[in-house]
Amino acid sequence: MLSIALLGTGNVAKHLFDALLRQNEVQVVQVAGRNKEALTYFEKDIKITTNFDHIDDADIYIIAISDDAISLVSERLMDKKGLVVHTSGSVSMQALKRNQRRGVFYPLQTFSKTKKIDFKGIPICIEAANENDLKLLQLLGGAISNKVSEISSEQRESLHLAAVFVNNFTNHLYHIGHEICKENKVPFHMLKPLIMETAQKINDLTPLEAQTGAARRNDMETIRKHIHQLENNAYREIYSLLNQSIRKTYGEKL
Amino acid sequence: MLSIALLGTGNVAKHLFDALLRQNEVQVVQVAGRNKEALTYFEKDIKITTNFDHIDDADIYIIAISDDAISLVSERLMDKKGLVVHTSGSVSMQALKRNQRRGVFYPLQTFSKTKKIDFKGIPICIEAANENDLKLLQLLGGAISNKVSEISSEQRESLHLAAVFVNNFTNHLYHIGHEICKENKVPFHMLKPLIMETAQKINDLTPLEAQTGAARRNDMETIRKHIHQLENNAYREIYSLLNQSIRKTYGEKL
Repeated sequence: MLSIALLGTGNVAKHLFDALLRQNEVQVVQVAGRNKEALTYFEKDIKITTNFDHIDDADIYIIAISDDAISLVSERLMDKKGLVVHTSGSVSMQALKRNQRRGVFYPLQTFSKTKKIDFKGIPICIEAANENDLKLLQLLGGAISNKVSEISSEQRESLHLAAVFVNNFTNHLYHIGHEICKENKVPFHMLKPLIMETAQKINDLTPLEAQTGAARRNDMETIRKHIHQLENNAYREIYSLLNQSIRKTYGEKL
Repeated sequence: MLSIALLGTGNVAKHLFDALLRQNEVQVVQVAGRNKEALTYFEKDIKITTNFDHIDDADIYIIAISDDAISLVSERLMDKKGLVVHTSGSVSMQALKRNQRRGVFYPLQTFSKTKKIDFKGIPICIEAANENDLKLLQLLGGAISNKVSEISSEQRESLHLAAVFVNNFTNHLYHIGHEICKENKVPFHMLKPLIMETAQKINDLTPLEAQTGAARRNDMETIRKHIHQLENNAYREIYSLLNQSIRKTYGEKL
Protein backbone atom coordinates (compact mmCIF):
# COMPACT_ATOMS: atom_id res chain seq x y z
CA MET A 1 0.00 0.00 0.00
CA LEU A 2 1.21 3.50 -0.89
CA SER A 3 1.54 5.86 2.07
CA ILE A 4 0.93 9.54 1.38
CA ALA A 5 1.68 12.72 3.30
CA LEU A 6 -0.34 15.66 2.06
CA LEU A 7 0.99 19.20 2.52
CA GLY A 8 -1.65 21.87 2.02
CA THR A 9 -5.26 22.55 2.97
CA GLY A 10 -6.68 24.41 -0.08
CA ASN A 11 -9.17 23.25 -2.69
CA VAL A 12 -6.78 20.92 -4.53
CA ALA A 13 -5.62 19.33 -1.26
CA LYS A 14 -9.21 18.79 -0.09
CA HIS A 15 -10.48 17.25 -3.32
CA LEU A 16 -7.38 15.07 -3.65
CA PHE A 17 -7.74 13.99 -0.04
CA ASP A 18 -11.39 13.01 -0.54
CA ALA A 19 -10.50 10.98 -3.63
CA LEU A 20 -7.52 9.24 -1.99
CA LEU A 21 -9.50 8.41 1.16
CA ARG A 22 -11.84 6.20 -0.87
CA GLN A 23 -9.03 4.04 -2.29
CA ASN A 24 -7.69 0.83 -0.80
CA GLU A 25 -4.32 0.95 -2.59
CA VAL A 26 -3.43 4.26 -0.98
CA GLN A 27 -3.29 5.49 2.59
CA VAL A 28 -3.02 9.14 3.56
CA VAL A 29 -0.97 9.07 6.77
CA GLN A 30 -0.85 12.77 7.55
CA VAL A 31 -2.04 16.22 6.43
CA ALA A 32 0.12 19.26 7.15
CA GLY A 33 -0.87 22.93 6.87
CA ARG A 34 -0.08 26.22 8.50
CA ASN A 35 -3.70 27.19 8.93
CA LYS A 36 -5.09 25.37 11.98
CA GLU A 37 -8.69 26.12 11.12
CA ALA A 38 -8.33 24.74 7.59
CA LEU A 39 -6.92 21.52 9.08
CA THR A 40 -10.18 20.76 10.90
CA TYR A 41 -11.55 19.47 7.57
CA PHE A 42 -9.04 16.61 7.72
CA GLU A 43 -8.60 15.87 11.40
CA LYS A 44 -11.59 13.57 11.86
CA ASP A 45 -10.05 11.07 9.43
CA ILE A 46 -6.32 11.58 9.76
CA LYS A 47 -3.33 12.79 11.77
CA ILE A 48 -2.66 16.48 11.25
CA THR A 49 0.17 18.90 11.98
CA THR A 50 0.85 22.61 11.60
CA ASN A 51 4.60 22.05 11.74
CA PHE A 52 6.29 21.19 8.43
CA ASP A 53 9.28 19.86 10.35
CA HIS A 54 7.07 17.16 11.87
CA ILE A 55 6.07 15.36 8.70
CA ASP A 56 5.88 11.58 9.08
CA ASP A 57 7.71 9.27 6.69
CA ALA A 58 5.70 8.33 3.61
CA ASP A 59 6.19 6.87 0.13
CA ILE A 60 4.98 10.07 -1.53
CA TYR A 61 4.80 13.66 -0.24
CA ILE A 62 2.23 15.70 -2.14
CA ILE A 63 2.77 19.45 -1.91
CA ALA A 64 -0.60 21.05 -2.81
CA ILE A 65 -0.04 24.68 -1.89
CA SER A 66 0.20 28.02 -3.68
CA ASP A 67 2.80 28.16 -6.46
CA ASP A 68 5.14 30.66 -4.86
CA ALA A 69 5.50 28.61 -1.63
CA ILE A 70 6.30 25.24 -3.27
CA SER A 71 10.04 25.73 -3.44
CA LEU A 72 10.33 26.84 0.16
CA VAL A 73 8.14 24.07 1.59
CA SER A 74 9.97 21.41 -0.42
CA GLU A 75 13.17 22.32 1.41
CA ARG A 76 11.59 21.14 4.63
CA LEU A 77 11.45 17.67 3.04
CA MET A 78 15.05 17.53 1.80
CA ASP A 79 16.04 14.76 4.23
CA LYS A 80 13.10 12.53 3.34
CA LYS A 81 13.70 9.34 1.35
CA GLY A 82 10.26 9.28 -0.28
CA LEU A 83 9.17 10.93 -3.54
CA VAL A 84 8.29 14.64 -3.30
CA VAL A 85 5.78 15.98 -5.85
CA HIS A 86 3.85 19.20 -6.32
CA THR A 87 0.42 19.60 -7.93
CA SER A 88 0.90 22.83 -9.87
CA GLY A 89 0.30 23.34 -13.58
CA SER A 90 2.69 26.22 -14.03
CA VAL A 91 5.64 25.38 -11.75
CA SER A 92 8.57 23.38 -13.09
CA MET A 93 9.65 20.13 -11.45
CA GLN A 94 13.00 21.86 -10.82
CA ALA A 95 11.32 24.10 -8.24
CA LEU A 96 11.65 21.13 -5.86
CA LYS A 97 15.30 22.05 -5.64
CA ARG A 98 16.98 20.01 -3.02
CA ASN A 99 14.83 16.92 -2.88
CA GLN A 100 16.47 13.62 -3.65
CA ARG A 101 13.47 12.25 -5.50
CA ARG A 102 11.08 14.67 -7.13
CA GLY A 103 8.14 14.77 -9.50
CA VAL A 104 4.87 16.42 -10.48
CA PHE A 105 1.30 15.22 -9.97
CA TYR A 106 -0.94 17.79 -11.69
CA PRO A 107 -4.70 17.21 -11.88
CA LEU A 108 -5.91 19.28 -14.85
CA GLN A 109 -9.18 20.54 -13.41
CA THR A 110 -10.75 23.51 -11.61
CA PHE A 111 -11.63 22.87 -7.97
CA SER A 112 -14.14 24.85 -5.92
CA LYS A 113 -14.65 24.75 -2.22
CA THR A 114 -18.23 23.57 -2.37
CA LYS A 115 -18.63 21.60 -5.59
CA LYS A 116 -18.01 17.83 -5.48
CA ILE A 117 -16.15 16.36 -8.42
CA ASP A 118 -15.52 12.88 -9.76
CA PHE A 119 -11.77 12.34 -10.05
CA LYS A 120 -12.13 9.38 -12.45
CA GLY A 121 -12.45 11.66 -15.48
CA ILE A 122 -9.78 14.18 -14.50
CA PRO A 123 -6.58 14.04 -16.59
CA ILE A 124 -3.59 13.72 -14.28
CA CYS A 125 -0.25 14.88 -15.68
CA ILE A 126 2.69 13.14 -14.10
CA GLU A 127 6.41 13.74 -14.35
CA ALA A 128 9.38 12.29 -12.47
CA ALA A 129 13.16 12.30 -12.67
CA ASN A 130 13.41 8.52 -13.07
CA GLU A 131 11.45 5.52 -14.38
CA ASN A 132 10.68 3.99 -10.98
CA ASP A 133 9.21 7.17 -9.59
CA LEU A 134 7.16 7.58 -12.75
CA LYS A 135 5.73 4.11 -12.16
CA LEU A 136 4.93 5.07 -8.58
CA LEU A 137 3.01 8.13 -9.80
CA GLN A 138 1.21 6.01 -12.37
CA LEU A 139 0.10 3.78 -9.52
CA LEU A 140 -1.05 6.75 -7.44
CA GLY A 141 -2.78 8.42 -10.40
CA GLY A 142 -4.41 5.19 -11.55
CA ALA A 143 -5.95 4.71 -8.09
CA ILE A 144 -8.10 7.82 -8.50
CA SER A 145 -8.28 8.58 -12.25
CA ASN A 146 -8.63 6.80 -15.59
CA LYS A 147 -6.59 9.42 -17.40
CA VAL A 148 -2.96 9.47 -16.26
CA SER A 149 -0.42 10.82 -18.78
CA GLU A 150 3.30 11.48 -18.66
CA ILE A 151 3.76 15.17 -19.48
CA SER A 152 7.03 17.15 -19.35
CA SER A 153 7.34 20.41 -17.40
CA GLU A 154 7.40 22.37 -20.63
CA GLN A 155 4.30 20.65 -22.02
CA ARG A 156 2.53 21.08 -18.71
CA GLU A 157 3.21 24.82 -18.78
CA SER A 158 1.60 25.00 -22.23
CA LEU A 159 -1.42 23.00 -21.06
CA HIS A 160 -1.74 25.29 -18.08
CA LEU A 161 -1.63 28.38 -20.28
CA ALA A 162 -4.28 26.89 -22.58
CA ALA A 163 -6.31 26.07 -19.46
CA VAL A 164 -6.23 29.74 -18.44
CA PHE A 165 -7.97 30.61 -21.71
CA VAL A 166 -10.59 27.84 -21.67
CA ASN A 167 -11.29 28.01 -17.93
CA ASN A 168 -10.31 31.28 -16.18
CA PHE A 169 -11.05 33.55 -19.12
CA THR A 170 -14.15 31.64 -20.20
CA ASN A 171 -15.56 31.95 -16.71
CA HIS A 172 -14.90 35.68 -16.86
CA LEU A 173 -16.91 35.85 -20.10
CA TYR A 174 -19.73 34.08 -18.24
CA HIS A 175 -19.40 36.81 -15.63
CA ILE A 176 -19.67 39.55 -18.27
CA GLY A 177 -22.77 37.80 -19.68
CA HIS A 178 -24.15 37.70 -16.14
CA GLU A 179 -23.55 41.44 -15.70
CA ILE A 180 -25.19 42.30 -19.03
CA CYS A 181 -28.25 40.27 -17.99
CA LYS A 182 -28.37 41.94 -14.57
CA GLU A 183 -28.15 45.45 -16.01
CA ASN A 184 -30.93 44.72 -18.47
CA LYS A 185 -33.12 42.72 -16.10
CA VAL A 186 -33.14 39.47 -18.04
CA PRO A 187 -32.57 36.15 -16.24
CA PHE A 188 -29.01 34.81 -16.67
CA HIS A 189 -30.24 31.23 -16.24
CA MET A 190 -31.74 31.45 -19.74
CA LEU A 191 -28.16 31.33 -21.05
CA LYS A 192 -27.23 28.11 -19.27
CA PRO A 193 -28.37 25.66 -21.99
CA LEU A 194 -26.34 27.72 -24.49
CA ILE A 195 -23.28 27.62 -22.23
CA MET A 196 -23.56 23.83 -21.87
CA GLU A 197 -24.06 23.31 -25.60
CA THR A 198 -21.07 25.53 -26.41
CA ALA A 199 -18.90 23.32 -24.20
CA GLN A 200 -20.39 20.03 -25.43
CA LYS A 201 -20.06 20.99 -29.09
CA ILE A 202 -16.28 20.61 -29.08
CA ASN A 203 -16.68 16.90 -28.43
CA ASP A 204 -17.99 16.67 -32.01
CA LEU A 205 -16.35 19.62 -33.75
CA THR A 206 -13.05 21.49 -33.45
CA PRO A 207 -13.52 25.00 -32.00
CA LEU A 208 -12.55 26.31 -35.44
CA GLU A 209 -15.49 24.45 -37.00
CA ALA A 210 -17.87 25.23 -34.14
CA GLN A 211 -17.54 29.02 -34.37
CA THR A 212 -20.77 30.87 -35.13
CA GLY A 213 -21.95 34.46 -34.72
CA ALA A 214 -21.68 37.91 -36.23
CA ALA A 215 -17.87 38.06 -36.20
CA ARG A 216 -17.60 34.74 -38.02
CA ARG A 217 -20.19 35.88 -40.59
CA ASN A 218 -18.58 39.32 -40.74
CA ASP A 219 -22.04 40.79 -40.10
CA MET A 220 -21.00 44.42 -39.56
CA GLU A 221 -24.47 45.73 -38.83
CA THR A 222 -24.96 43.41 -35.86
CA ILE A 223 -21.41 44.10 -34.64
CA ARG A 224 -22.04 47.84 -34.70
CA LYS A 225 -25.30 47.37 -32.83
CA HIS A 226 -23.57 45.29 -30.14
CA ILE A 227 -20.83 47.86 -29.62
CA HIS A 228 -23.44 50.58 -29.36
CA GLN A 229 -25.34 48.52 -26.74
CA LEU A 230 -22.28 48.08 -24.50
CA GLU A 231 -22.17 50.90 -21.98
CA ASN A 232 -19.28 49.49 -19.97
CA ASN A 233 -15.98 50.59 -21.56
CA ALA A 234 -13.99 47.58 -20.40
CA TYR A 235 -16.57 45.18 -21.86
CA ARG A 236 -16.66 47.16 -25.10
CA GLU A 237 -12.89 46.83 -25.39
CA ILE A 238 -13.07 43.06 -24.79
CA TYR A 239 -15.84 42.78 -27.37
CA SER A 240 -13.79 44.64 -29.98
CA LEU A 241 -10.62 42.65 -29.41
CA LEU A 242 -12.28 39.21 -29.46
CA ASN A 243 -14.44 40.20 -32.39
CA GLN A 244 -11.33 41.29 -34.29
CA SER A 245 -9.51 38.07 -33.38
CA ILE A 246 -12.37 35.92 -34.70
CA ARG A 247 -12.54 37.88 -37.95
CA LYS A 248 -8.78 37.51 -38.34
CA THR A 249 -9.05 33.77 -37.72
CA TYR A 250 -11.51 33.43 -40.59
CA GLY A 251 -9.43 35.46 -42.97
CA GLU A 252 -11.22 38.79 -42.99
CA LYS A 253 -8.98 41.65 -43.99
CA LEU A 254 -9.28 44.19 -41.16
CA MET B 1 -53.68 21.94 -35.61
CA LEU B 2 -51.27 24.80 -36.27
CA SER B 3 -50.08 25.09 -39.86
CA ILE B 4 -46.60 26.46 -40.38
CA ALA B 5 -44.77 27.83 -43.41
CA LEU B 6 -41.03 27.91 -42.89
CA LEU B 7 -38.91 30.42 -44.82
CA GLY B 8 -35.20 29.62 -44.75
CA THR B 9 -32.90 26.61 -45.15
CA GLY B 10 -30.02 27.33 -42.75
CA ASN B 11 -29.13 25.70 -39.43
CA VAL B 12 -31.94 27.27 -37.42
CA ALA B 13 -34.51 26.37 -40.08
CA LYS B 14 -33.29 22.76 -40.24
CA HIS B 15 -33.23 22.15 -36.50
CA LEU B 16 -36.60 23.84 -36.06
CA PHE B 17 -38.02 21.79 -38.92
CA ASP B 18 -36.79 18.53 -37.39
CA ALA B 19 -38.32 19.44 -34.02
CA LEU B 20 -41.66 20.54 -35.53
CA LEU B 21 -41.92 17.45 -37.70
CA ARG B 22 -42.10 15.24 -34.61
CA GLN B 23 -45.11 17.09 -33.13
CA ASN B 24 -48.76 16.25 -33.64
CA GLU B 25 -50.09 19.70 -32.69
CA VAL B 26 -48.15 21.33 -35.51
CA GLN B 27 -47.92 20.76 -39.23
CA VAL B 28 -45.28 22.26 -41.45
CA VAL B 29 -47.06 22.80 -44.78
CA GLN B 30 -44.21 24.27 -46.81
CA VAL B 31 -40.54 25.22 -46.75
CA ALA B 32 -39.29 28.11 -48.91
CA GLY B 33 -35.71 29.02 -49.74
CA ARG B 34 -33.74 30.61 -52.53
CA ASN B 35 -31.11 27.88 -52.54
CA LYS B 36 -32.47 24.87 -54.43
CA GLU B 37 -29.77 22.53 -53.18
CA ALA B 38 -30.40 23.45 -49.54
CA LEU B 39 -34.07 22.66 -50.06
CA THR B 40 -33.33 19.00 -50.81
CA TYR B 41 -33.00 18.45 -47.04
CA PHE B 42 -36.72 19.19 -46.68
CA GLU B 43 -38.30 17.94 -49.87
CA LYS B 44 -38.72 14.30 -48.88
CA ASP B 45 -41.11 15.31 -46.07
CA ILE B 46 -42.74 18.47 -47.31
CA LYS B 47 -43.73 20.76 -50.17
CA ILE B 48 -40.94 23.15 -51.11
CA THR B 49 -40.61 26.30 -53.21
CA THR B 50 -37.84 28.66 -54.28
CA ASN B 51 -40.31 31.45 -54.97
CA PHE B 52 -41.25 33.61 -51.99
CA ASP B 53 -44.33 34.81 -53.87
CA HIS B 54 -45.67 31.26 -53.88
CA ILE B 55 -45.99 30.72 -50.15
CA ASP B 56 -49.08 28.74 -49.14
CA ASP B 57 -51.48 30.06 -46.50
CA ALA B 58 -50.58 29.08 -42.96
CA ASP B 59 -51.34 30.04 -39.35
CA ILE B 60 -47.74 31.05 -38.72
CA TYR B 61 -44.94 32.04 -41.12
CA ILE B 62 -41.51 31.50 -39.58
CA ILE B 63 -38.74 33.54 -41.21
CA ALA B 64 -35.47 31.80 -40.27
CA ILE B 65 -32.95 33.58 -42.50
CA SER B 66 -29.97 35.89 -42.06
CA ASP B 67 -30.70 39.07 -40.08
CA ASP B 68 -30.22 41.54 -42.89
CA ALA B 69 -32.72 39.79 -45.19
CA ILE B 70 -35.58 39.51 -42.68
CA SER B 71 -37.15 42.87 -43.45
CA LEU B 72 -37.12 42.35 -47.19
CA VAL B 73 -38.50 38.81 -47.10
CA SER B 74 -41.26 39.81 -44.70
CA GLU B 75 -42.58 42.23 -47.31
CA ARG B 76 -43.37 39.28 -49.54
CA LEU B 77 -45.83 38.17 -46.85
CA MET B 78 -47.61 41.48 -46.39
CA ASP B 79 -50.90 40.24 -47.82
CA LYS B 80 -51.00 37.13 -45.65
CA LYS B 81 -53.54 36.90 -42.83
CA GLY B 82 -51.44 34.59 -40.64
CA LEU B 83 -48.87 35.59 -38.01
CA VAL B 84 -45.38 36.43 -39.36
CA VAL B 85 -42.43 35.85 -36.99
CA HIS B 86 -38.65 35.89 -37.29
CA THR B 87 -36.17 33.80 -35.26
CA SER B 88 -33.38 36.31 -34.71
CA GLY B 89 -31.89 37.35 -31.38
CA SER B 90 -30.73 40.76 -32.45
CA VAL B 91 -33.42 41.99 -34.83
CA SER B 92 -36.37 44.00 -33.49
CA MET B 93 -39.95 42.86 -34.07
CA GLN B 94 -40.45 46.18 -35.93
CA ALA B 95 -38.23 44.88 -38.73
CA LEU B 96 -41.31 42.99 -39.95
CA LYS B 97 -42.53 46.31 -41.22
CA ARG B 98 -45.63 45.86 -43.25
CA ASN B 99 -47.07 42.69 -41.83
CA GLN B 100 -50.52 42.86 -40.31
CA ARG B 101 -49.67 40.42 -37.52
CA ARG B 102 -46.08 40.07 -36.41
CA GLY B 103 -43.96 38.53 -33.69
CA VAL B 104 -40.66 36.92 -32.72
CA PHE B 105 -39.84 33.27 -32.06
CA TYR B 106 -36.20 33.17 -30.94
CA PRO B 107 -34.63 29.89 -29.80
CA LEU B 108 -31.68 30.87 -27.59
CA GLN B 109 -29.19 28.24 -28.70
CA THR B 110 -26.28 27.64 -31.05
CA PHE B 111 -27.04 25.35 -33.98
CA SER B 112 -24.51 23.46 -36.05
CA LYS B 113 -25.06 21.72 -39.30
CA THR B 114 -24.07 18.28 -38.05
CA LYS B 115 -24.84 18.19 -34.33
CA LYS B 116 -28.30 16.97 -33.24
CA ILE B 117 -29.91 18.87 -30.40
CA ASP B 118 -32.88 18.30 -28.08
CA PHE B 119 -35.24 21.25 -28.39
CA LYS B 120 -37.01 20.47 -25.09
CA GLY B 121 -34.36 22.28 -23.04
CA ILE B 122 -33.90 25.27 -25.34
CA PRO B 123 -35.31 28.57 -24.02
CA ILE B 124 -37.62 30.10 -26.62
CA CYS B 125 -38.16 33.84 -26.40
CA ILE B 126 -41.48 34.92 -27.83
CA GLU B 127 -42.90 38.36 -28.54
CA ALA B 128 -46.05 39.48 -30.36
CA ALA B 129 -48.01 42.68 -30.93
CA ASN B 130 -51.18 41.33 -29.29
CA GLU B 131 -52.36 38.84 -26.65
CA ASN B 132 -53.89 36.34 -29.07
CA ASP B 133 -50.75 36.06 -31.18
CA LEU B 134 -48.69 35.66 -28.02
CA LYS B 135 -50.92 32.73 -27.06
CA LEU B 136 -50.42 31.25 -30.50
CA LEU B 137 -46.62 31.46 -30.10
CA GLN B 138 -46.89 29.93 -26.63
CA LEU B 139 -48.71 27.01 -28.23
CA LEU B 140 -46.09 26.67 -30.94
CA GLY B 141 -43.18 27.02 -28.47
CA GLY B 142 -44.75 24.63 -25.97
CA ALA B 143 -45.01 21.95 -28.66
CA ILE B 144 -41.22 21.71 -28.95
CA SER B 145 -39.75 23.23 -25.74
CA ASN B 146 -40.38 23.31 -21.98
CA LYS B 147 -38.94 26.80 -21.66
CA VAL B 148 -41.04 29.40 -23.45
CA SER B 149 -40.80 32.99 -22.11
CA GLU B 150 -42.25 36.28 -23.20
CA ILE B 151 -39.30 38.61 -23.82
CA SER B 152 -39.44 42.14 -25.27
CA SER B 153 -37.29 43.17 -28.25
CA GLU B 154 -35.07 45.23 -25.96
CA GLN B 155 -34.56 42.37 -23.48
CA ARG B 156 -33.91 39.97 -26.33
CA GLU B 157 -31.19 42.22 -27.70
CA SER B 158 -29.50 42.17 -24.28
CA LEU B 159 -29.78 38.40 -24.06
CA HIS B 160 -28.30 38.12 -27.53
CA LEU B 161 -25.38 40.36 -26.61
CA ALA B 162 -24.74 38.31 -23.46
CA ALA B 163 -24.95 35.18 -25.64
CA VAL B 164 -22.17 36.54 -27.85
CA PHE B 165 -19.87 36.63 -24.81
CA VAL B 166 -20.79 33.22 -23.37
CA ASN B 167 -21.00 31.42 -26.70
CA ASN B 168 -19.17 33.09 -29.64
CA PHE B 169 -16.32 34.53 -27.59
CA THR B 170 -16.06 31.49 -25.33
CA ASN B 171 -15.73 29.25 -28.36
CA HIS B 172 -12.98 31.52 -29.64
CA LEU B 173 -11.13 31.07 -26.33
CA TYR B 174 -11.44 27.31 -26.87
CA HIS B 175 -9.89 27.89 -30.27
CA ILE B 176 -6.97 29.81 -28.75
CA GLY B 177 -6.50 26.98 -26.25
CA HIS B 178 -6.55 24.56 -29.18
CA GLU B 179 -3.88 26.59 -31.00
CA ILE B 180 -1.63 26.77 -27.93
CA CYS B 181 -1.88 22.98 -27.57
CA LYS B 182 -1.12 22.45 -31.26
CA GLU B 183 1.94 24.70 -31.20
CA ASN B 184 3.31 22.94 -28.15
CA LYS B 185 2.36 19.41 -29.19
CA VAL B 186 0.07 18.61 -26.28
CA PRO B 187 -3.32 16.98 -26.91
CA PHE B 188 -6.22 19.45 -26.74
CA HIS B 189 -8.61 16.70 -25.63
CA MET B 190 -6.94 16.76 -22.22
CA LEU B 191 -8.67 20.12 -21.67
CA LYS B 192 -12.18 18.81 -22.37
CA PRO B 193 -13.05 17.73 -18.81
CA LEU B 194 -11.94 21.19 -17.64
CA ILE B 195 -14.09 22.88 -20.27
CA MET B 196 -17.13 20.83 -19.23
CA GLU B 197 -16.57 21.46 -15.52
CA THR B 198 -16.18 25.20 -16.15
CA ALA B 199 -19.58 25.23 -17.84
CA GLN B 200 -21.25 22.97 -15.26
CA LYS B 201 -19.92 24.95 -12.32
CA ILE B 202 -22.23 27.88 -12.94
CA ASN B 203 -25.21 25.66 -12.14
CA ASP B 204 -23.98 25.72 -8.54
CA LEU B 205 -22.10 29.01 -8.30
CA THR B 206 -22.38 32.45 -9.88
CA PRO B 207 -19.53 33.13 -12.32
CA LEU B 208 -18.29 35.72 -9.81
CA GLU B 209 -17.94 33.00 -7.16
CA ALA B 210 -16.60 30.40 -9.59
CA GLN B 211 -13.61 32.45 -10.76
CA THR B 212 -10.21 30.89 -10.06
CA GLY B 213 -6.71 31.38 -11.44
CA ALA B 214 -3.71 33.67 -11.33
CA ALA B 215 -5.63 36.87 -12.16
CA ARG B 216 -8.14 36.23 -9.37
CA ARG B 217 -5.32 35.51 -6.91
CA ASN B 218 -3.32 38.43 -8.28
CA ASP B 219 -0.39 36.01 -8.71
CA MET B 220 1.93 38.30 -10.67
CA GLU B 221 4.72 35.78 -11.12
CA THR B 222 2.48 33.31 -12.94
CA ILE B 223 0.91 36.12 -15.00
CA ARG B 224 4.35 37.33 -16.12
CA LYS B 225 5.32 33.77 -17.01
CA HIS B 226 2.16 33.31 -19.10
CA ILE B 227 2.70 36.56 -21.02
CA HIS B 228 6.28 35.53 -21.69
CA GLN B 229 5.09 32.13 -22.99
CA LEU B 230 2.65 33.67 -25.49
CA GLU B 231 4.42 34.15 -28.80
CA ASN B 232 1.33 35.21 -30.73
CA ASN B 233 0.80 38.96 -30.31
CA ALA B 234 -2.98 38.85 -30.71
CA TYR B 235 -3.29 36.16 -28.02
CA ARG B 236 -0.96 38.10 -25.72
CA GLU B 237 -3.18 41.15 -26.10
CA ILE B 238 -6.30 39.10 -25.30
CA TYR B 239 -4.55 37.58 -22.30
CA SER B 240 -3.61 41.02 -20.95
CA LEU B 241 -7.04 42.53 -21.41
CA LEU B 242 -8.98 39.65 -19.84
CA ASN B 243 -6.44 39.33 -17.07
CA GLN B 244 -6.82 43.04 -16.31
CA SER B 245 -10.62 42.79 -16.39
CA ILE B 246 -10.61 39.91 -13.87
CA ARG B 247 -8.26 41.79 -11.54
CA LYS B 248 -10.49 44.85 -11.77
CA THR B 249 -13.57 42.74 -10.99
CA TYR B 250 -11.96 41.56 -7.77
CA GLY B 251 -10.94 45.01 -6.71
CA GLU B 252 -7.23 44.99 -7.48
CA LYS B 253 -5.89 48.45 -8.06
CA LEU B 254 -4.21 48.36 -11.45
